[in-house]
Amino acid sequence: MTTDETIASIRGHAAYQAACDVLRAEHDRTVQDIITLTEIPAPPFAEEKRAAAYLDMLRAHGLEEVAQDEVGNVMGLRRGFGNGDILVVAAHLDTVFPAGTDVRVRREGTKLFAPGVGDDTRSLAVNLAFLRAMDAAGIRTRHDILFVGDVGEEGLGDLRGIRHLFATHPRRERIRGFLTVDSPEVERIVTGGIGSRRFRVTFRGPGGHSYAAFGMVNPMYAMAEAARSLAAIRVPREPVTTHCVSVVSGGTSINAIPETVTMEVDLRSASADELAKLERGFLAGVEGAVAAENMAREGTIRVEITPVGDRPAGHTPNGAPIARLAAAAVAAEGYSPSFEWSSTDANIPMSLGIPALRIGSGGRGGRAHSLEEWIDVEIEGSLRGMRASLATILAVAEMEVA
Amino acid sequence: MTTDETIASIRGHAAYQAACDVLRAEHDRTVQDIITLTEIPAPPFAEEKRAAAYLDMLRAHGLEEVAQDEVGNVMGLRRGFGNGDILVVAAHLDTVFPAGTDVRVRREGTKLFAPGVGDDTRSLAVNLAFLRAMDAAGIRTRHDILFVGDVGEEGLGDLRGIRHLFATHPRRERIRGFLTVDSPEVERIVTGGIGSRRFRVTFRGPGGHSYAAFGMVNPMYAMAEAARSLAAIRVPREPVTTHCVSVVSGGTSINAIPETVTMEVDLRSASADELAKLERGFLAGVEGAVAAENMAREGTIRVEITPVGDRPAGHTPNGAPIARLAAAAVAAEGYSPSFEWSSTDANIPMSLGIPALRIGSGGRGGRAHSLEEWIDVEIEGSLRGMRASLATILAVAEMEVA
Repeated sequence: MTTDETIASIRGHAAYQAACDVLRAEHDRTVQDIITLTEIPAPPFAEEKRAAAYLDMLRAHGLEEVAQDEVGNVMGLRRGFGNGDILVVAAHLDTVFPAGTDVRVRREGTKLFAPGVGDDTRSLAVNLAFLRAMDAAGIRTRHDILFVGDVGEEGLGDLRGIRHLFATHPRRERIRGFLTVDSPEVERIVTGGIGSRRFRVTFRGPGGHSYAAFGMVNPMYAMAEAARSLAAIRVPREPVTTHCVSVVSGGTSINAIPETVTMEVDLRSASADELAKLERGFLAGVEGAVAAENMAREGTIRVEITPVGDRPAGHTPNGAPIARLAAAAVAAEGYSPSFEWSSTDANIPMSLGIPALRIGSGGRGGRAHSLEEWIDVEIEGSLRGMRASLATILAVAEMEVA
Repeated sequence: MTTDETIASIRGHAAYQAACDVLRAEHDRTVQDIITLTEIPAPPFAEEKRAAAYLDMLRAHGLEEVAQDEVGNVMGLRRGFGNGDILVVAAHLDTVFPAGTDVRVRREGTKLFAPGVGDDTRSLAVNLAFLRAMDAAGIRTRHDILFVGDVGEEGLGDLRGIRHLFATHPRRERIRGFLTVDSPEVERIVTGGIGSRRFRVTFRGPGGHSYAAFGMVNPMYAMAEAARSLAAIRVPREPVTTHCVSVVSGGTSINAIPETVTMEVDLRSASADELAKLERGFLAGVEGAVAAENMAREGTIRVEITPVGDRPAGHTPNGAPIARLAAAAVAAEGYSPSFEWSSTDANIPMSLGIPALRIGSGGRGGRAHSLEEWIDVEIEGSLRGMRASLATILAVAEMEVA
């Protein structure tokens, strides 16, 4: 069967159609779940409260092996009829918003406004809706489906939830596929995982009075040379490779040589090799800059390089069955699917060679990572996207269609 | 008469000795004045309260023409018997400490601990003590002595008080000499005024996502190249010329190209010509750095260069009578005088060719500009230094010794 035929066979199946009817009938409940979960704060490194609530929800949905792991991921298993191979269907619990952010949902018509509402809280609720629909329709899949609400997807969380899952889950060897439902849009299927390496680099020197201590090493000059040398590194356009000195701070007074200057650096590439090459070039530049400053003036600059982010690059080939099934399911709803590169939880399985994608939770949304984040839960647009992602999940999990 | 002879004739004079007896008899009062004035906060650009208190003290000491000028300096005149030539004896009202700093004085034995206690509050009280001693001893001087408590000596105050005095005082043409009593130590006589030029340089670009917007100009890279280019400028050891990138800040998130990066730069020289040359080199470096970044990537960095400090360089020749008199007065108390370069209120008259020095208020002290600033008001050490400075003032003001 071609992938198009597989999708067609699922979409034509009475059980799938019954499941879609359940999604429609329960749309208000799904919306309510989105609101409930959005209003439980889940700042970076503080997802506990939302995790606890979601764990209860997974349990209430009748999953097996409901559990929370050491880093805070919550999960539960929907048993398949096969031999125990696993498809992971995940959504992330964390938001980018710090503790204290007002996370109350404001509703205007079919639009919901709240920090984190679309990235990625909607997906947590949508995965529960999928589960209820599959159960109500009596759908059976060959693979076990492990539903996961994971921690640490955003920013300095550094994918730690999914990283931990693939490093420690007792049945990690049986995971055959990974779908992260992340943000509403379904057309843009992420098959490429941009890798990143992030560093905080601190240059320390003895400091001193700008005039009286002139001739002593200045950590500012070492930082400047290191940043300049990164700026001068040539990176390929393809595979896309980027660098950025993002944040800098140091010094206390205009008449003092600073003791400490810190810069934060973000390096990315679609290619693990190019990323490693860029990192080597950057680190050599830092070392050279410090040596040059130590040669130019008296005293010693010491440098402390702290990795603060490490997301492996990876790629699910666009021709891989999982990618073709997702594209066919999206196209079957009349969307124009495209394959994209991004940095998501899917980076981890991609880097391990496990077929993985980011797919969408349906509906529309915008202004993610801003306080004006919003989603539209208008029923027809929402269900259309949800049907595409449900079909993808069922195809990858090998729904029984006989 | 040689300068040594002049100092000897003053020190041997009964009126001077009577004045010294008054300094001793009133030492406790002087200490109390130090405490009173120190505990009136005088942050940068907010010297009003202390100025008002000092104005009252000048008036209570019977000076003439007691007044406050437009920028906040307070002053009063002790009339001489000559034709109206003026010696300015100043101390600065302002401290480096921001509003809200705890300025209460803690006394341990003969030590007083408080922010600003030595730099320069002690001098304000000591100048009053000189005045009382001269009056009680019936000392007459040829020159009028204008006692000044001036604003804006520290940091970004940029010498604005004394700058204003020399620009606008109605009798500025009659000023023949300038002594700023600044900080305790008397051995180090400042005859050289280090000039400085200070800048805040802000680089602005469009910003953007570190990955998605890669290829856009990064203000961090322009700043880095500008700082690096300053670091590479060769400056002479003699006349001493220095540069420092002191404070830097910019960026908000590790995954974003910053919109704004700011650096603060301090340039100094003992020579006005070298300072101008260094400034030209620095500004050319900034311009070149911006042009290079705008060439290397898309979009446009704009730069905003704000001068935040401009202290003229100047020098009172070490052989000038005022310098030789001060050295002789200090040596007569058994100290080893040296001529130093610094950046003080004396820079302004020096840059105008008016004989000017920094002299000391006596006693010991340390940790100026820190919250642990202290002075020692032990009576013998204090009086010894005060006698040296009083002799200097009287010699320069041409005390009547006949």
